[in-house]
Amino acid sequence: MINFQSDYVEGAHPKILEMMAKTNMEQTPGYGHDPYCDRAKAKILAVCRAPAADVHFLVGGTQTNLTVIASILRPHQGVLAADEGHIACHETGAIEATGHKVLTLPSRDGTITGAQVAAYMEDHNQSEIREHMVQPGMVYLSFPTESGTLYSKQQLTDLSETCHRFGIPLYLDGARMGYGLTSPDNDLSLADIAQCCDVFYIGGTKCGALLGEAVVITNDALKKDFKYHIKQRGGMLAKGRLIGIQFDVLFENDLYFNICRTAVGHALAIRQAFEQEGISFYGHSMTNQQFPILTDDQLAFFGTKYISEFWGKADENHSIVRFCTSWATKKESVDELISDIHAMGQIG
Amino acid sequence: MINFQSDYVEGAHPKILEMMAKTNMEQTPGYGHDPYCDRAKAKILAVCRAPAADVHFLVGGTQTNLTVIASILRPHQGVLAADEGHIACHETGAIEATGHKVLTLPSRDGTITGAQVAAYMEDHNQSEIREHMVQPGMVYLSFPTESGTLYSKQQLTDLSETCHRFGIPLYLDGARMGYGLTSPDNDLSLADIAQCCDVFYIGGTKCGALLGEAVVITNDALKKDFKYHIKQRGGMLAKGRLIGIQFDVLFENDLYFNICRTAVGHALAIRQAFEQEGISFYGHSMTNQQFPILTDDQLAFFGTKYISEFWGKADENHSIVRFCTSWATKKESVDELISDIHAMGQIG
Amino acid sequence: MINFQSDYVEGAHPKILEMMAKTNMEQTPGYGHDPYCDRAKAKILAVCRAPAADVHFLVGGTQTNLTVIASILRPHQGVLAADEGHIACHETGAIEATGHKVLTLPSRDGTITGAQVAAYMEDHNQSEIREHMVQPGMVYLSFPTESGTLYSKQQLTDLSETCHRFGIPLYLDGARMGYGLTSPDNDLSLADIAQCCDVFYIGGTKCGALLGEAVVITNDALKKDFKYHIKQRGGMLAKGRLIGIQFDVLFENDLYFNICRTAVGHALAIRQAFEQEGISFYGHSMTNQQFPILTDDQLAFFGTKYISEFWGKADENHSIVRFCTSWATKKESVDELISDIHAMGQIG
Amino acid sequence: MINFQSDYVEGAHPKILEMMAKTNMEQTPGYGHDPYCDRAKAKILAVCRAPAADVHFLVGGTQTNLTVIASILRPHQGVLAADEGHIACHETGAIEATGHKVLTLPSRDGTITGAQVAAYMEDHNQSEIREHMVQPGMVYLSFPTESGTLYSKQQLTDLSETCHRFGIPLYLDGARMGYGLTSPDNDLSLADIAQCCDVFYIGGTKCGALLGEAVVITNDALKKDFKYHIKQRGGMLAKGRLIGIQFDVLFENDLYFNICRTAVGHALAIRQAFEQEGISFYGHSMTNQQFPILTDDQLAFFGTKYISEFWGKADENHSIVRFCTSWATKKESVDELISDIHAMGQIG
Repeated sequence: MINFQSDYVEGAHPKILEMMAKTNMEQTPGYGHDPYCDRAKAKILAVCRAPAADVHFLVGGTQTNLTVIASILRPHQGVLAADEGHIACHETGAIEATGHKVLTLPSRDGTITGAQVAAYMEDHNQSEIREHMVQPGMVYLSFPTESGTLYSKQQLTDLSETCHRFGIPLYLDGARMGYGLTSPDNDLSLADIAQCCDVFYIGGTKCGALLGEAVVITNDALKKDFKYHIKQRGGMLAKGRLIGIQFDVLFENDLYFNICRTAVGHALAIRQAFEQEGISFYGHSMTNQQFPILTDDQLAFFGTKYISEFWGKADENHSIVRFCTSWATKKESVDELISDIHAMGQIG
Repeated sequence: MINFQSDYVEGAHPKILEMMAKTNMEQTPGYGHDPYCDRAKAKILAVCRAPAADVHFLVGGTQTNLTVIASILRPHQGVLAADEGHIACHETGAIEATGHKVLTLPSRDGTITGAQVAAYMEDHNQSEIREHMVQPGMVYLSFPTESGTLYSKQQLTDLSETCHRFGIPLYLDGARMGYGLTSPDNDLSLADIAQCCDVFYIGGTKCGALLGEAVVITNDALKKDFKYHIKQRGGMLAKGRLIGIQFDVLFENDLYFNICRTAVGHALAIRQAFEQEGISFYGHSMTNQQFPILTDDQLAFFGTKYISEFWGKADENHSIVRFCTSWATKKESVDELISDIHAMGQIG
Repeated sequence: MINFQSDYVEGAHPKILEMMAKTNMEQTPGYGHDPYCDRAKAKILAVCRAPAADVHFLVGGTQTNLTVIASILRPHQGVLAADEGHIACHETGAIEATGHKVLTLPSRDGTITGAQVAAYMEDHNQSEIREHMVQPGMVYLSFPTESGTLYSKQQLTDLSETCHRFGIPLYLDGARMGYGLTSPDNDLSLADIAQCCDVFYIGGTKCGALLGEAVVITNDALKKDFKYHIKQRGGMLAKGRLIGIQFDVLFENDLYFNICRTAVGHALAIRQAFEQEGISFYGHSMTNQQFPILTDDQLAFFGTKYISEFWGKADENHSIVRFCTSWATKKESVDELISDIHAMGQIG
Repeated sequence: MINFQSDYVEGAHPKILEMMAKTNMEQTPGYGHDPYCDRAKAKILAVCRAPAADVHFLVGGTQTNLTVIASILRPHQGVLAADEGHIACHETGAIEATGHKVLTLPSRDGTITGAQVAAYMEDHNQSEIREHMVQPGMVYLSFPTESGTLYSKQQLTDLSETCHRFGIPLYLDGARMGYGLTSPDNDLSLADIAQCCDVFYIGGTKCGALLGEAVVITNDALKKDFKYHIKQRGGMLAKGRLIGIQFDVLFENDLYFNICRTAVGHALAIRQAFEQEGISFYGHSMTNQQFPILTDDQLAFFGTKYISEFWGKADENHSIVRFCTSWATKKESVDELISDIHAMGQIG
């Protein structure tokens, strides 16, 4: 079986393992106070063109989201998010477990707009019974979204200006950041994101690392005491260098971008093949995740040879399925899948 | 500088890195549903002689403690612990952040007794205003304790019987489990611990792994839905095999025990050298952590060549210092330190 | 100005004040251990025909909801509720502040059905990634709902059977219980509610008391240690008799039911007048709250003489407005309003 | 039996009941937006000489403490308090339930000092592993303390200056404020307290009201959005005027101070009688609570006629007992008790 189920079915990019092996016996201080973390932070700040920002390394996405959000909100505040946002759906109520409601905005493609945020803020602020409702205290975006869509530079700038106008921070979850930045549809850079967002994270786990996410805090008001929050929520590794080494390697010579770009290329080739066979898609993803809508027969056809992720029923006879690529996806596997897609077209 | 500051200054045991490299390109399901996790669990259950227990892998100690404790307690309950317990002191209020008070029992050497627990329970249950107080809902131990002391089989059995008598679970934090089990003073096995405790964890991070702790749940009532808790608290790795592989390696051919036994041997050699020079100790640790009490001059003497951890002031002119060994400690480093300890004795 | 804004614009029923004055100098134990609380509990249990149930008195609705719900759920669980449910909208995230997500079900009239609950439970239980989602752990209803609609005996029985089938408790918020039970549309008794629900509360604040809600717990498994929860959440009054006296008076000679029935009668007379003038309504409330949909001119017409509550815009030129009656509403006021409703009809 | 068990065994001062009866049928807006609340706030601000402060009315002490403290602290922060502080002992972990640790300072008489706070802050700030510990984020005092002792103006000023030096708010719990301010030992005024504290509350429940506490916020930074917190924690009464009326009455013509002064006078007469008979006391209370240390025989002697509160064992043969007075204590009861104290002296 060839596995396209997710972007975390293999281990880490080999250069990471090499560096881990090479530095294994070096003695370094714990809890992220090591030279590898320092070096990785410097590289991240450089590419973000945000020399005054803070960088912190955390273990995984859910933990990063809950730690960042709980560090920002006061008890009566909630976080605005798309109704398909990861924090709203697939983190077992991690945000609520820290005491905060996720306030959802309707979204057809996973994105939300500055206008939606502004309308929500105004409605709340003008309500005579606003103290009986959760106060929106920040905005959460994912880039790319859970269904692989992107924010344009204009859309992100709008959101940023709206947030600043209402005095609430903008937070961007970049679990799959690399695949968004290297999509042919994208016009954002990490520097743009650093300029628009008060805090965001650059995903490692799904972009070639074993684990680890890099939180970048650009807003001075949000920097204070962040390490306490990491420790309290269980995100501070004793052997912190484990994540430092990985980001150090990934941000050396654009490795992070190069491997993600290749993965996106593979995904778009798969997309094209499906399109050629008249298959339609859930959402419009130009990133490493593709969501073709297949009949039960088509599903069965692929199921004999490929592992994909069931994403939901589209209607009684159709299912949405996710095919994912990553740094580890082999060209041969992609070619074989494409060939089978065309074979499927001929058959059914 | 030679670093004895902690047992997490190097990376992982080389066999772990080898296995990670060897299996890197294998495709496995995420979130711990992979064959390495399965194999590691089977090995752990075998050595615990607890075939019906559940095993789960989490990222780090603080996270494991907060996840386990919050999964057990109801909102009005707290956890009994020694006043020096890790959850009481050095986890940034992680337990309180989940809504629960740590109820401390006085302890001179880091351990608590069944009699202390029984007295606390009786006092609470007999109080006419008990509903105005936090109800003790479970007991937390660390083995070895934060200052390297151990529970004997008799002491642990007492605690276990007391807890069962009062209907509250007993939880044991084994962040440094390997160093306790292989201490010459120890008379407990993992099977004993599995029999006495309702839930406990076997520490990986400080015993040779890069990261990772193995939670063992023996009490059926505590097993239900535990995976939800792991996910909610951010402890579920997408690439879950990262921890599975490590425990699989560590529990192959007793590697876990062998490397810890060697580390304890090194620590006791260092201890003996200090004792020969008339140095006294904080607590009585027969494990991999040694806490000599040094004068400022002695501190300065070692400070030129060795990194140790400042543990606190003993009095105005004396400091408690921690020297730690691990799987990675080299015999040459230990010999050199011992030789310097004797040199110190001659000098000051 | 005549105030129909809510059912809490006056103080308490005069018989309550009389009893408070009469017993003021009696010395009683604190925290609800007084004879008035005992007597009130006995009366409530009798009318509920639930001699083995527990009764507790709390201060207000939001507090009752958060205390009951947080006492029941485990950390990874949420509470199912209609999307217009009070806990979902108008309690400032009180449930989330205790760590739990409110899982909303779509509802057009404020009620939800057993079928909806069953479908949600099945979807969750069958999901392969259910551990990444909040587990539904109980169901919340309000009776009457926030928009004045009712559950029939059949509907409540369905919900009860569904909950029991899936092993989750059913909780009913009866902030305006009296107005529901005495509605001409109602076919439920308190005994029926006690039989169908695992826990519910009988509202005092909005039904003639100064403050206070009576929680009835029929499910043995939910009774244990409930007083700890009340104390922890700040709901335990030192002078607990204040609430005991009120329920003692309200449940003497059916006062609670009689005053609510009269209030509902007033509300339905107002409803009828609006209907006669061709005014339509938001929802279908046969209780003490009426939600006519008025033009801006009609709103202005009433605004000179009556205080009502703005409930929301129906469309650009129409507003939903709430007129409330209570034990304190005077017949003259109702007659005057009705006469003005007809006058409005003639004018505009 | 004559009841000296607490200061909440009777109802409310009769003037309060009179005003409630008199205003019962007036129609006022809910949630504290009524003229009685406004009038009471104005009176409180005047006596505090703090015209720019905010006043809010909450239901009870535990609720007030948890609402105020949770509104101030960030998640990684705790509250410093005396180890006998009410929040540390007798609120069922209400503070921890909001996510925050109570950091206790040792205290022999219930008070803490500016020097203790300063030492704790410096230790924390200088620690190299401070991020592994809860950050002290505010200070909690009770005045009078749980054992009836007082802070002098000098002591409170020291604490205030220390808190401001370290940038943390000072909060004072005045559940029994009236009995402290009217003690002959006291040199503080409400204006002094308003000047020294960032936030404090004036207790109603134990000082003549049915229920209710008045929170005064003098620090502008702590004022924002406080009403959201009250609502979220369940402390916002629909019929908010119930508390407004009570404080309006209590702060008319110094009623609050006059009734508390009388109660303290009664308590000190009882104290004197015990002293004359050679009885010693727990702590040194010059307020309405007296804690004589009695033998078992003496306890039995009083137990036939008086209800007092068992406070704890002093040694094997002696118990600490609490005798409380209040606005409702009758002079005849006090005289009878004094006479019996002397009778006890003659007998045993």
